[in-house]
Amino acid sequence: MTAQTRPAEPVPFTAGDFAARQQRSAQAAQDAGLAGLLLTPGPDLLYLTGYAPVAITERITMLVLPVDGEPTMIVPKLERPDAENAAGASTLQLVDWTDGSDPYEATAKLLDGNGRYALSDSAWAMHLLGLQGVLTKSSYVSMTTALPMLRAMKDADEVARLAAAGAAADQAYGEILHVRFAGRSETDVGADLADLLRQFGHSQVDFTVVASGPNGANPHHEIGDRIIEDGDMVVLDFGGLKHGYGSDTTRTVHVGEPTDEEREVHDIVRRAQQAGFEAVQPGIECQEIDRAPRAVITEAGYGEYFIHRTGHGIGLTTHEPPYMVEGETHLLQPGMCFSIEPGIYLPGRFGVRIEDIVTVTPNSGRRLNQTPHEMAIVS
Amino acid sequence: MTAQTRPAEPVPFTAGDFAARQQRSAQAAQDAGLAGLLLTPGPDLLYLTGYAPVAITERITMLVLPVDGEPTMIVPKLERPDAENAAGASTLQLVDWTDGSDPYEATAKLLDGNGRYALSDSAWAMHLLGLQGVLTKSSYVSMTTALPMLRAMKDADEVARLAAAGAAADQAYGEILHVRFAGRSETDVGADLADLLRQFGHSQVDFTVVASGPNGANPHHEIGDRIIEDGDMVVLDFGGLKHGYGSDTTRTVHVGEPTDEEREVHDIVRRAQQAGFEAVQPGIECQEIDRAPRAVITEAGYGEYFIHRTGHGIGLTTHEPPYMVEGETHLLQPGMCFSIEPGIYLPGRFGVRIEDIVTVTPNSGRRLNQTPHEMAIVS
Repeated sequence: MTAQTRPAEPVPFTAGDFAARQQRSAQAAQDAGLAGLLLTPGPDLLYLTGYAPVAITERITMLVLPVDGEPTMIVPKLERPDAENAAGASTLQLVDWTDGSDPYEATAKLLDGNGRYALSDSAWAMHLLGLQGVLTKSSYVSMTTALPMLRAMKDADEVARLAAAGAAADQAYGEILHVRFAGRSETDVGADLADLLRQFGHSQVDFTVVASGPNGANPHHEIGDRIIEDGDMVVLDFGGLKHGYGSDTTRTVHVGEPTDEEREVHDIVRRAQQAGFEAVQPGIECQEIDRAPRAVITEAGYGEYFIHRTGHGIGLTTHEPPYMVEGETHLLQPGMCFSIEPGIYLPGRFGVRIEDIVTVTPNSGRRLNQTPHEMAIVS
Repeated sequence: MTAQTRPAEPVPFTAGDFAARQQRSAQAAQDAGLAGLLLTPGPDLLYLTGYAPVAITERITMLVLPVDGEPTMIVPKLERPDAENAAGASTLQLVDWTDGSDPYEATAKLLDGNGRYALSDSAWAMHLLGLQGVLTKSSYVSMTTALPMLRAMKDADEVARLAAAGAAADQAYGEILHVRFAGRSETDVGADLADLLRQFGHSQVDFTVVASGPNGANPHHEIGDRIIEDGDMVVLDFGGLKHGYGSDTTRTVHVGEPTDEEREVHDIVRRAQQAGFEAVQPGIECQEIDRAPRAVITEAGYGEYFIHRTGHGIGLTTHEPPYMVEGETHLLQPGMCFSIEPGIYLPGRFGVRIEDIVTVTPNSGRRLNQTPHEMAIVS
């Protein structure tokens, strides 16, 4: 691998961008009959303020975004200087609390005591219990329940970042085909993948699945000490963040010559992924993107071996709404970005999965991963 | 820096260790009048089962540990093989749920519908809301509220791991004194620190604070593009995980010759840290470990510039109970491990902080960091 020049940073989001997102979100909260939104550190807060604390800890940080009134963020006093430096800080009122005081009393002052609020999914239960204890007449609902699509429709700048992250993951895949697989451990090949993702501009590597032979039949096997052998099918599923936006792609390669059965299973998954992609268009339900690939796999007799949903959204995280799963009736809309990743898992033997990130265009879908779906042979 | 041999792994915790911890925890829950404990991925679950899912996601994983009855862990179906491989898996009944089904209905079946449960602090609010929705007569309290000291008393094997992590952080500090500071950015020195922590056996680097000159006056400034200059005070606060247990140490160094005022402020903090350490013994309240250093700093006229609590526990995380803060009346007990880290922060000018991890012995305290407290001069 050769060193490369650092890719240009995209133009940062501005206070104006954050103010517009806040306004749109407050409107969505109002339409949903809520008193407001409560956002804690993580992708929701980053999306609405540009602020990410150094660490997510037991000290509460929370943006209170009321349907009318000023957005106010409460922060631990010692983190206030960092919060003041956030790109969207000028759009917010900041309030701080000090170690030893009761942060829930302080936060409750910013809320309507009879209001219903949507709360970030990953907010700490401890904080929710704290608020419920102080404001006994308030009520809460998770963001995914109340406003699952708040961050789902990406604007052009966001899609461009996701495309750049996808292109970098594709470059990593192109390179990994040239490394040695047979005789090396999954862990070693995974380290190569992580290095490649960073080399191509990822600031964070979230996962590097290298699932060889029978390990491939466990869709969440990440990596292990198993030595890859000639004749193994190997699932490679990797991604992370580049310039703050996610990548996530899967290809299944083979060490040496595959058997007819391996070719057949791989081809079924390839056709399933293609069917999912071709189903993408605005106005259809998310569950259709699950049904189309599942129909191909079921038709081929492998339905019971496709044991997970077909996909998940991606953006500031590598795992977020919308979900491509049976029962999800939200409609696809232009700007949505998500994975299509059907698989077949044959217990004790091998697995195959193929995954691209796809964005919804005004008429259909566009892949943000471009590497071939055909089974690559590695050595 | 030279490459070094990989340090020996400590003997892993066994199913017997996990079973004993579960039994002790169930007893503590019973004593607290609870129906049981609900543990989600993170340090609580790791402590009681040895299980850490590949990622913490919106898919619920939860150990239900009733005061009587069998410990049962519900996991997403596709993560079941990983859960089955956990060191403590044999001590648990496993139940799985499938994408598309309601995980809260499935989890609720494991709970007493009228029971009161303590829940991991960092459990996702979404999951708590899901359970509250299904079991309207159940009630919940955070682990830190109900059983804050559940993981606080470390056994000898745990203290040994913390000591090893501390020794590695000390080695990193010893090396960092020899790198160039003046003319380099905080980010560059922080990268050196991270490399050193990894070189000395850390698998994870949680923070590398390099806060130079006026940045040092912000106790949560991590790192930035500021170029370190001759004459700067530089706060170095760094740590992470080695063999699963945390390190966290702070020393404040000076580039070139310090002024009399800088020497004086540094010496006040040094004496404050020593006072905190000397206060450690079983049976005194945690808040005394905050009061002792604060008295030294207040006496010296800098009380208003010590703007955070004195310390926090450490174990499977770098931030956990017990907290050394005014109002914390829990009593120190042998085996507790925590930081003592007083500081003085002069806005716009500089900051000083000195931090050691300390463990409570039968009679007093023992430092798990051993590097000198005197202000080191760097170049």
